[in-house]
Amino acid sequence: MAERSSSGWTLAIHGGAGALPRGLLAADLERIRDALRGALEEGSGVLASRGRSLDAVQAAVRAMEGSGVLNAGLGAALNHEGLAELDAALMDGRDRRAGAVAAVRHVAHPIDLARAIMDEGEHVMLAGLGAEQFAREHGLELRPDSDFITERRLKELEQAIGASSGGGGSVSVPWHPRGTVGAVALDIHGDLAAATSTGGLINKHAGRVGDSPIIGAGTFAENGVGAVSATGTGEYFIRFIAASEVCARIKYQGKSVETAAREVIAQLEAAGGEGGLIAMDGRGAVAMPYSSQTMLRGQAAAGREPAVIVEA
Amino acid sequence: MAERSSSGWTLAIHGGAGALPRGLLAADLERIRDALRGALEEGSGVLASRGRSLDAVQAAVRAMEGSGVLNAGLGAALNHEGLAELDAALMDGRDRRAGAVAAVRHVAHPIDLARAIMDEGEHVMLAGLGAEQFAREHGLELRPDSDFITERRLKELEQAIGASSGGGGSVSVPWHPRGTVGAVALDIHGDLAAATSTGGLINKHAGRVGDSPIIGAGTFAENGVGAVSATGTGEYFIRFIAASEVCARIKYQGKSVETAAREVIAQLEAAGGEGGLIAMDGRGAVAMPYSSQTMLRGQAAAGREPAVIVEA
Repeated sequence: MAERSSSGWTLAIHGGAGALPRGLLAADLERIRDALRGALEEGSGVLASRGRSLDAVQAAVRAMEGSGVLNAGLGAALNHEGLAELDAALMDGRDRRAGAVAAVRHVAHPIDLARAIMDEGEHVMLAGLGAEQFAREHGLELRPDSDFITERRLKELEQAIGASSGGGGSVSVPWHPRGTVGAVALDIHGDLAAATSTGGLINKHAGRVGDSPIIGAGTFAENGVGAVSATGTGEYFIRFIAASEVCARIKYQGKSVETAAREVIAQLEAAGGEGGLIAMDGRGAVAMPYSSQTMLRGQAAAGREPAVIVEA
Repeated sequence: MAERSSSGWTLAIHGGAGALPRGLLAADLERIRDALRGALEEGSGVLASRGRSLDAVQAAVRAMEGSGVLNAGLGAALNHEGLAELDAALMDGRDRRAGAVAAVRHVAHPIDLARAIMDEGEHVMLAGLGAEQFAREHGLELRPDSDFITERRLKELEQAIGASSGGGGSVSVPWHPRGTVGAVALDIHGDLAAATSTGGLINKHAGRVGDSPIIGAGTFAENGVGAVSATGTGEYFIRFIAASEVCARIKYQGKSVETAAREVIAQLEAAGGEGGLIAMDGRGAVAMPYSSQTMLRGQAAAGREPAVIVEA
């Protein structure tokens, strides 16, 4: 039985909300599963060795950023100019410290940059060229644009531009997931943390910032209450401060994480927004509601087999 | 008597939290008062002619941005590189639509850019060069760096850099307010709105984003609940999602706007943050708590004399 004990820890991750197209190649599906499994492994490794939830969510997100098959880090979707501009954030539920980065280019692991900003302690959020400058000052890995501009993402962008200019046409591009990636965790010390990273919307305007790096919208953690990472049409998650709203309903209305999370996704859906989120309460109970066709996701906990769900 | 009626409207503004130094010249004080009075006039003009609260808060903030004596728009404080990077946001309580801009340069009126982003409808937030590109595409007024780099703000920056490198020394620079500017309003249609604009912290790292453009942190509005604009050490306002937290306490705990706003400022203060906020509930009741030495502020309402408070 999975009763929570002092040695209990829990990790949940998502690889983005959206649709899995019919006819997706088995090899592509397996690459996605591998990416999620790798993320669970990295995060679980930290938690199982009595590490901190903050380090675990960073490790899990870092693995997804590096996988190249999810919309984050080196696998990011491209903006209207054909460039990868990245958003990421993490938050420590223990003391509400947070780090965030928005619309930054050339950074292989935006979640590491968010962590460096948090650890440096002066600011919470950096954007654009100033964020890249901070990455250089702190020795983070920078990559040329060409490392982000893969053939797959370029074709996808051309198709998105064609569709938005009325071209329409069939979807025959080799497919990559389009959602954000994220993780939430509770460690054996009882601390919650959340992390999120994304390339954002395909064909977005240069400089567009989604909900992922917005503390309270796409990423939020407060010990004893909840940790949340969101994915979907970010503009709605910002307007409805989705992540902190889940926590407000737990904290002030006494709702379960399941009810609070479902209500917020339903509220967004009613307004026209689509997506999902992963939420964990202060005792490690997990909710993963979504209004999109599916949400790539996975879960691991002390003494349980890790599980990944990739389904249409 | 100021009973609220169907013709009631209310406007509150702030010119930033912080200290007013001893020995401030009477002429400087008068310029600050004039800037606040001008903002009240612009916002009141909209509201008195049955206009919308969204337009009123934009007009009030626009006036403060243009005054050149407050830390926003053309009067913005300079970052560590000696450049003005601007943040702003506004939110419509009627439908939770919002627009935000972060770390943008050369834009004389960032609040107009935030409004243009909101009206264009595709995204909520743009940052950095992409935000400037959007401003160009939409014909907004752009200014050379030299229009922002005033002698006053340059001297202030040199002093801040000297102080942070251990130089210390006395404060003898001609003084400018250092806080953010903002406005909240209720119109005769019963709709709430909030707007905030800032040059951010003096000597901030390039790309630093404060709470002002973060929906839920520095700016928030929800009809029937509250409208909030914050000013202070933005990093704390982000971590504590100050603006939406005021509204959560009104909505879920049934607290008055006065109690909710005071509690949030007290919570930030306990954590080491300093500043204040202006908050208005769904019926136009106003709270203006601050933990700093003072907060420049003003208020106007249908059938009442507008009042500006600039005091040490």
